[in-house]
Amino acid sequence: MKDSKLSLPYYKLSFLAELIGAELIGDDIEVNGISSIDFQVINTISILSLTSKLKLYDGDATALIISDDIYKRKQDFGKPILKVSDSRLSVVKLLNLFFPEEAVKHSISSHSIISESADISSPVEIGHFVVLGDNTVIGSNTIIRHNVVIGNSVTIGSNCIIYPNVTIYDDVVIGDNVIIHSGAVIGGDGFGFIPTADLPIRIQQKGNVILDDYVEIGANACVDRATLGSTIISKGTKLAALVMVGHNTILGNSCLVASQAGFSGSMIVGDHVLVAGQAGFSDHVNIVSNTTFGGQAGISNDIKEPGLYMGSPCMPLVKYAKSVAIFSKLPELQRRIKDLEDKSN
Amino acid sequence: MKDSKLSLPYYKLSFLAELIGAELIGDDIEVNGISSIDFQVINTISILSLTSKLKLYDGDATALIISDDIYKRKQDFGKPILKVSDSRLSVVKLLNLFFPEEAVKHSISSHSIISESADISSPVEIGHFVVLGDNTVIGSNTIIRHNVVIGNSVTIGSNCIIYPNVTIYDDVVIGDNVIIHSGAVIGGDGFGFIPTADLPIRIQQKGNVILDDYVEIGANACVDRATLGSTIISKGTKLAALVMVGHNTILGNSCLVASQAGFSGSMIVGDHVLVAGQAGFSDHVNIVSNTTFGGQAGISNDIKEPGLYMGSPCMPLVKYAKSVAIFSKLPELQRRIKDLEDKSN
Amino acid sequence: MKDSKLSLPYYKLSFLAELIGAELIGDDIEVNGISSIDFQVINTISILSLTSKLKLYDGDATALIISDDIYKRKQDFGKPILKVSDSRLSVVKLLNLFFPEEAVKHSISSHSIISESADISSPVEIGHFVVLGDNTVIGSNTIIRHNVVIGNSVTIGSNCIIYPNVTIYDDVVIGDNVIIHSGAVIGGDGFGFIPTADLPIRIQQKGNVILDDYVEIGANACVDRATLGSTIISKGTKLAALVMVGHNTILGNSCLVASQAGFSGSMIVGDHVLVAGQAGFSDHVNIVSNTTFGGQAGISNDIKEPGLYMGSPCMPLVKYAKSVAIFSKLPELQRRIKDLEDKSN
Repeated sequence: MKDSKLSLPYYKLSFLAELIGAELIGDDIEVNGISSIDFQVINTISILSLTSKLKLYDGDATALIISDDIYKRKQDFGKPILKVSDSRLSVVKLLNLFFPEEAVKHSISSHSIISESADISSPVEIGHFVVLGDNTVIGSNTIIRHNVVIGNSVTIGSNCIIYPNVTIYDDVVIGDNVIIHSGAVIGGDGFGFIPTADLPIRIQQKGNVILDDYVEIGANACVDRATLGSTIISKGTKLAALVMVGHNTILGNSCLVASQAGFSGSMIVGDHVLVAGQAGFSDHVNIVSNTTFGGQAGISNDIKEPGLYMGSPCMPLVKYAKSVAIFSKLPELQRRIKDLEDKSN
Repeated sequence: MKDSKLSLPYYKLSFLAELIGAELIGDDIEVNGISSIDFQVINTISILSLTSKLKLYDGDATALIISDDIYKRKQDFGKPILKVSDSRLSVVKLLNLFFPEEAVKHSISSHSIISESADISSPVEIGHFVVLGDNTVIGSNTIIRHNVVIGNSVTIGSNCIIYPNVTIYDDVVIGDNVIIHSGAVIGGDGFGFIPTADLPIRIQQKGNVILDDYVEIGANACVDRATLGSTIISKGTKLAALVMVGHNTILGNSCLVASQAGFSGSMIVGDHVLVAGQAGFSDHVNIVSNTTFGGQAGISNDIKEPGLYMGSPCMPLVKYAKSVAIFSKLPELQRRIKDLEDKSN
Repeated sequence: MKDSKLSLPYYKLSFLAELIGAELIGDDIEVNGISSIDFQVINTISILSLTSKLKLYDGDATALIISDDIYKRKQDFGKPILKVSDSRLSVVKLLNLFFPEEAVKHSISSHSIISESADISSPVEIGHFVVLGDNTVIGSNTIIRHNVVIGNSVTIGSNCIIYPNVTIYDDVVIGDNVIIHSGAVIGGDGFGFIPTADLPIRIQQKGNVILDDYVEIGANACVDRATLGSTIISKGTKLAALVMVGHNTILGNSCLVASQAGFSGSMIVGDHVLVAGQAGFSDHVNIVSNTTFGGQAGISNDIKEPGLYMGSPCMPLVKYAKSVAIFSKLPELQRRIKDLEDKSN
């Protein structure tokens, strides 16, 4: 693991405390990395933010990051600690310190097939066995890893990373700072067929996909191209692995979509929508901004009120929780009705 | 987007009206493409078939296709219109007109590794970094795109398209006019293990997969090979992205399966079965023809009556709708029982 | 299909009977393969273990394997039979006899890019268009098929098979006898973002993935790397196609996970856990050993008692079955309450 590498520079705890806004309690020693509380590494600082992990404090890590509420339960850890109010943000800052982004060094593998009409900025990094179609445009500081296939007339912005074995179909437009993980398929044909008494009639899919700036697409996720027009993932929206986005659907800004969730076609989803794993949306449904959907939620109607929804078909959380609680008591309810009937006869 | 290309030929509206059986109302002008009502393009004809999109009529498109029921609400659009009874079929015909299938030009990349025992018709198109195993057979007018891996003893018919990064395992048999989208895996090992008190015992999977004519497989979908015999997808059946078909399962003709739906092993599914997204079927279940399953439906028993089924476990639609409606009123039901109990005491 | 190949050696039924502990009833003829009852092949022995398949006995197969309970219903099949108590184990043994593992012949494609710092044992088999990163280690008798991309500092043990188009990110550790099917992505970034009023803040994912000995990963399945530390799949655990394992989750030994099931992040799952298709687990949930989850089960709380759980949210089987049975009778229950109310007024 990278976090055990010895080549990293060492930082004083006081420096880290300043960086993350922590209080240093104990000696101002040096560490050269960050490790998880479950897999502590010597010479690193480890994050202890869950009370359920409290018993693990006495591990190999040389120092600990402690959240306020942990500190209320225990003060003496036998090693220096950094006390913080928000351990998650602290982790982000420390990861960015210990794992700084490396500058892209211009390199294009001679084992890749790049169309002569491709317009490639510099620096870019293009791995082996990549195919880059006609009239593609690649912005600067973008990395395209091995075995990626990019179709014709594709535009990719700056500072993007396309991981191995990704496929991007023709005409896809990708903004800046976009990350696409391995196996993802961007721009595959939308699922458009008209059933008949014989074979289904195929509707050609001739639109495209637009991924706006700061979008991230998880491993093996699929975003289908529009029939006409565009399937759009807006700025800052992140899809986890194995997520599906159907044709002509438009996702708003800064949505977070957990793995195996699925959006059907022709949906319009607002901004800051959070979707837990395996939730599924019917086609042509509109979702207002600032809504959250629980795991395996099923959404078949427009959602017009922001809030938290659960269940399939989904309901507002409070309503769902009440009904679900009674669901498990249905046998009792049935018996009580029987008792009343017996009494009344 | 391709629909904005200027190189397309122009067609008179009267010609299009004849082609799709529409009534032309307005000037017989020319257009060179078709666009969606949400992303209208100048010099194209745009489809206005949903009343919810009516307010978008005044966009860039030069002409509109209007469905009968839209025309009943509004007659004057300030531009020529084609009035049709079935807008979906009209779109199919216009897409096929404006995006005619291109003839396959024989080309086999010298950057691909083709077994000497492969039997390849002409013309075929084989992209870069393709691997074609021993004794494979490829029919004429078939296109195999970049980075596709095809195992040994695979047969692929005519007029097929295999998109980039597809994997086809040994012994798979594929008919004519089959389309397989990127990342799909055809013929991976069925999931066959016998649990024990120690390690599970592995059952070798030595059957194959058969995809009949006109089958389409979505991006990153998986069709597992049979233990012995064949997993079969019959003629005209279409699977969307991320669909799973387990080993030894047989899907009938002309089924339409939406994304993330899953078929377990050893199932038999009839013809013209429609499956919405994320629906799941238990193993060894038989499904009669002409059934439709709602999103996230869970099917663990044989379905012997055609019809529409929803819920998990699934029920006929009418029954499901009634029970679901009451589910959300369970707290009220519980209170009414309590009231009755209080009264009777 | 391989099972119809004529080049296999022939075996006497008495030899097979000895191997699988069966009773031979009929002539001691020879067969050269095994076939399924649905797709019988001449000169093979076919397995008839389901009463629902009984009517297929009169097919092309030259001999039949019959389970005890089948034999109780019918004795005369017009061909020799092998009577067994456990037909599944018999099939395993016969498959291993007729399809013996082939020895790995050392071969590394000159069309692959292997880092000079890679440490590769002999014999290994490396296909075409493979990329092997710096400081990777490959054990002996391991097969890496075409178009596989393996990052830097990856360790893969002995006797593994990595199928085409698999991606393995940096720092992944893989034990011996591991099988990874096509399209699987091992070590993609965990889904770690902190929502804000503006763009989500990205948490770098710098841990790794560890796949222990005898693990099998299905086609297009995804195992995300840990934020820090490791995501771990323990010895003998098998994931089917399109399964998702979130970051920092630890799966125990000998679990069997059916397709499209999903584990969120930071979970701890015990040993011998069986998960049916499309089941989903919330993050930070702990699952005790020897539990089984039904299809589409939703698990959002710790499971502390071994047993069988179904439903979403999941419940012990008996409880679930009772509630579900009443769910479909809710309209009747509602009517009975109404009747009681009418009577009491």
